[in-house]
Amino acid sequence: MAKPIGIFDSGVGGLTVAAAIKELLPEESFIYFGDTRHAPYGDKSRDTIQKYSTEITRFLLEQDCKAIVIACNTASALAYEKLKEKFSDVPMINVVDPVVDYVAENTHGKIGIIGTRATIKSGIYKKKLLEINNKLKVVSKATPLLVGIAEEDFTHTEISRHAIKQYLDNKDFKNVASLILGCTHFPLFQTEIESFYQGKAEIVDSPELVADRLSHILSDHGLHNKDQEKEASYDFYVSEKTGAFSSIARNFFGADIRLKEKVLS
Amino acid sequence: MAKPIGIFDSGVGGLTVAAAIKELLPEESFIYFGDTRHAPYGDKSRDTIQKYSTEITRFLLEQDCKAIVIACNTASALAYEKLKEKFSDVPMINVVDPVVDYVAENTHGKIGIIGTRATIKSGIYKKKLLEINNKLKVVSKATPLLVGIAEEDFTHTEISRHAIKQYLDNKDFKNVASLILGCTHFPLFQTEIESFYQGKAEIVDSPELVADRLSHILSDHGLHNKDQEKEASYDFYVSEKTGAFSSIARNFFGADIRLKEKVLS
Repeated sequence: MAKPIGIFDSGVGGLTVAAAIKELLPEESFIYFGDTRHAPYGDKSRDTIQKYSTEITRFLLEQDCKAIVIACNTASALAYEKLKEKFSDVPMINVVDPVVDYVAENTHGKIGIIGTRATIKSGIYKKKLLEINNKLKVVSKATPLLVGIAEEDFTHTEISRHAIKQYLDNKDFKNVASLILGCTHFPLFQTEIESFYQGKAEIVDSPELVADRLSHILSDHGLHNKDQEKEASYDFYVSEKTGAFSSIARNFFGADIRLKEKVLS
Repeated sequence: MAKPIGIFDSGVGGLTVAAAIKELLPEESFIYFGDTRHAPYGDKSRDTIQKYSTEITRFLLEQDCKAIVIACNTASALAYEKLKEKFSDVPMINVVDPVVDYVAENTHGKIGIIGTRATIKSGIYKKKLLEINNKLKVVSKATPLLVGIAEEDFTHTEISRHAIKQYLDNKDFKNVASLILGCTHFPLFQTEIESFYQGKAEIVDSPELVADRLSHILSDHGLHNKDQEKEASYDFYVSEKTGAFSSIARNFFGADIRLKEKVLS
């Protein structure tokens, strides 16, 4: 039986993760939920984000999803433990752990992290990195304007170049060995941030690492789709249809998508 | 009796209006409500914005407010008529009408409007301007990134300069006679936008015009505070306390503020 994977985010950002899953696991169907009614999560409290994440996960499980991908750094930081506890019988993947594991193993030098205000304030990346190796040197910074720049399609402009400079051209961040893009919007800045570092830092984004982790977990649980006759299907829900989502979504997912609206609360 | 004025916005933006009211009417107290739990309004639907605006207005009236200022362009565009109908016994001021009246009377040439996606999509400024004079030439554009730039305190940087250029350096906007700043965040860009136009366009923002309108309406209704012995008081509520609000608020209001949290729904 070809059950879908459930993927959710506060908005469009998680589509970068959805795109990586489609690329690595083309035989898997998925249902994507973008909580546009409540976006952005980046400035909201732990309680609020846990409430929204729980409602979405419940909805995705009602749609018979076989695994849940929290494709949002803020929800991964603030709601993952809660969701794992509440929905303990379904594999749950967040976007933080695959990146933390990769970086802790592969980086020899200072590690930088950028993300939304809530993700950075949660300290989730730093905490998890130091749990693995308490000698790691870690710096972090909230870079919320990059979200707006990505959504306005102003990447690869003087605006994005100066914003990257404003955020990263300082003592803390100048000589990092790895920079973690701790927001699912930020893969759109990958090449620009590489240029800023002139290739001297490794820029680590989550989509491919998350897709890879998902693939392993599906294998471990015997959940890979074996019915490869039927083409995979992709469903996209938002909690509020906005003109902006559709036009932005193309940049993030790399293909046109058709939206359905579903209000959860 | 010194009843307060009620002022609300989706977040911090309306504080520019609150500051202008404090400046023009120092004897008047006010209660400010920033709906940070639901911010930003700029990408939400009419129904959603009407629901939130109604709950906030009800709360402000429960606090005995004698007049309501909708210090948010999106709510002014999408919820003003509804609120006026629902709460017909209290003077209600929006941020659009004072600006429209001023510009229609004083501008001889093309009028430009910038604002959030929802404000621009509503067409409210254009509609109201053409109702007064259907020969006016009006162009409009959504400039949502300016909201993020103001909230990050990146005004007067290369980022703001390039964003203004990206939005305004085109055939439609190059030769406007007046530019309406149709978002309560945008007064923070006043001088930069003036520089962009090299002084050749009048940049019209709402705070002073709204404070002036409020003053007239208080006079008309005999509602001015006459008890000038007691100092005016300013109360600030948010629907969700976020670290960001307090630090940002200073730039918008021009003074430190103490926040109370009040969840309405």
